Amino acid sequence: MMVLKKSTQKELDRVQAIIKKELVSEKIIQEIYQYIFKAEGKKTRALLSLLASKSKEIKSKDRTNLASIIELLHTATLVHDDVVDESEIRRGTRSVNQVWTNSYSVLMGDFIYSKAFILMVKLGIPSILDELAKATNDIARGEIIQLNLLEKKQYIKLQDLLKVSYLKTGRLFEASSKTGAMLANKSKKEIKIFGLLGKTLGTAFQIQDDILDYEAFKLDTGKPALKDFKEGKITFPLYFALKNSTVKDKKFLMNRLGQPKISKKDQNKVYSLIQNEKTQKEINALLQKYSQETLKHLHKLKHDACYNEMLNLINFSKIRKK
Amino acid sequence: MMVLKKSTQKELDRVQAIIKKELVSEKIIQEIYQYIFKAEGKKTRALLSLLASKSKEIKSKDRTNLASIIELLHTATLVHDDVVDESEIRRGTRSVNQVWTNSYSVLMGDFIYSKAFILMVKLGIPSILDELAKATNDIARGEIIQLNLLEKKQYIKLQDLLKVSYLKTGRLFEASSKTGAMLANKSKKEIKIFGLLGKTLGTAFQIQDDILDYEAFKLDTGKPALKDFKEGKITFPLYFALKNSTVKDKKFLMNRLGQPKISKKDQNKVYSLIQNEKTQKEINALLQKYSQETLKHLHKLKHDACYNEMLNLINFSKIRKK
Repeated sequence: MMVLKKSTQKELDRVQAIIKKELVSEKIIQEIYQYIFKAEGKKTRALLSLLASKSKEIKSKDRTNLASIIELLHTATLVHDDVVDESEIRRGTRSVNQVWTNSYSVLMGDFIYSKAFILMVKLGIPSILDELAKATNDIARGEIIQLNLLEKKQYIKLQDLLKVSYLKTGRLFEASSKTGAMLANKSKKEIKIFGLLGKTLGTAFQIQDDILDYEAFKLDTGKPALKDFKEGKITFPLYFALKNSTVKDKKFLMNRLGQPKISKKDQNKVYSLIQNEKTQKEINALLQKYSQETLKHLHKLKHDACYNEMLNLINFSKIRKK
Repeated sequence: MMVLKKSTQKELDRVQAIIKKELVSEKIIQEIYQYIFKAEGKKTRALLSLLASKSKEIKSKDRTNLASIIELLHTATLVHDDVVDESEIRRGTRSVNQVWTNSYSVLMGDFIYSKAFILMVKLGIPSILDELAKATNDIARGEIIQLNLLEKKQYIKLQDLLKVSYLKTGRLFEASSKTGAMLANKSKKEIKIFGLLGKTLGTAFQIQDDILDYEAFKLDTGKPALKDFKEGKITFPLYFALKNSTVKDKKFLMNRLGQPKISKKDQNKVYSLIQNEKTQKEINALLQKYSQETLKHLHKLKHDACYNEMLNLINFSKIRKK
């Protein structure tokens, strides 16, 4: 876990409380809703928004409300993603589509999305509404492109992966950081920097996520290992591994890609191909590139109230194990 | 088809044009998007909004934009509903989940929902945003309750059916009518009447929809017949039929309910049980009740620019065959 300033931790706890206090009169909805939010996520996007909105002039209540809206939006995408990916596990417990059905997941996702929009309207800042509506649309776009890439397999370019990473992850990081700055009435120039910082941090976050999906095979993080590979997704590590593999190994990888059940021996081989020195060097260089860019943006916010905590968040993102 | 005033028909055509001109840079998204909007729906909700927003002071462009937003929201719910209901046909052609997959339907629904919210923000009227965000949330709520009712079967009460009909259909009719009136800057009192008119019209519309699901068995409307019954849904006609059936016939109905394949002979029997005189009397009385209430609300709008066309819409809704 990342160590947070006490006041920030308090605000992040408030986000969880705001979301959980939501009362729905129908038992079935309340039940699924509580199940979804019982398992606490990392709340990285909510934290990013809370840091970006730091300002003595803004009520803490508005800031935690915005962070809650962002966490709701993010959770809605996860609930729908689990249907798309046919996932069994989410945040360490069985996913909604497993405990209930895909149908419930589709509708609960819609329920949570629209709840987020209701709260956004209540917050009442048009520029924030605009940014979050656009981000939500871009996330869906990114997911559709990713789904379509599943059919492209070895013809995927690094450019494709970067675009998908931006849309499905970087975009909401960008919006979280940007709307936080908007709420705090920062200057147009600062809002832009916060947006860029979120964008590159989100891409770095996705790269680390892709790495961890393979690392989970050796680490004991509770995350299911090689999930992306089993779902047939070409992510950053696999992209480089394919590029650096012999014809024979490439064939091996492409044959196993998308198989839900892979023998332990084959999993070991997949893992070792990802561990290839050149592949590791390239994937780490890519991660480093986006982390450096994020720090470069942060550098321009040296006098902002969030500087130290934002620096912590950026550094922690690179070394996190889940 | 309902006969519309030339100027209104022109505006409704503009709605279709506004929606269709939407350009997405990604080929796959463009392809699915165009497929969805190639088959034209009835656009009842868009029409309701256009009629309610009639006012010499309001730009036609804003009115058709609002109607387009409503049509987008409605279409997003249909795309998701087809996943929930595992539907094969929508608007006379194969549904998105059939031509592509459930995953594409989930994400395209999200894409269209968020597109609607982007356009809503652009329209820039907070009260309209608030109403439509809440309506979207209520629709999801209604669908979840309906899904949950599938397990309740014979213990369903008329109250349950009325609640679901309001949430999943009446609510968006209400919002369409209400936001139309809001856009036209009508008085608080008038906005309330428009809302009530939409609400009761929507409920009548749903009752007629439920009736037509059975009537499609005899009529040649292109609609698949007994779809609700095969999906295990207890709708208004079946509710009354169960109430009025002998123990033996009730058992017959409950045994066949939710079976995807039912013999022609059994379908005939189901249909004839729905045709029971008392059942028909009760279902028609219910439809009549909501139609009368709608006319009662309309009566209070005698001097409104939309009066005659709204009267047409209400009367047509009762006799429509699809």
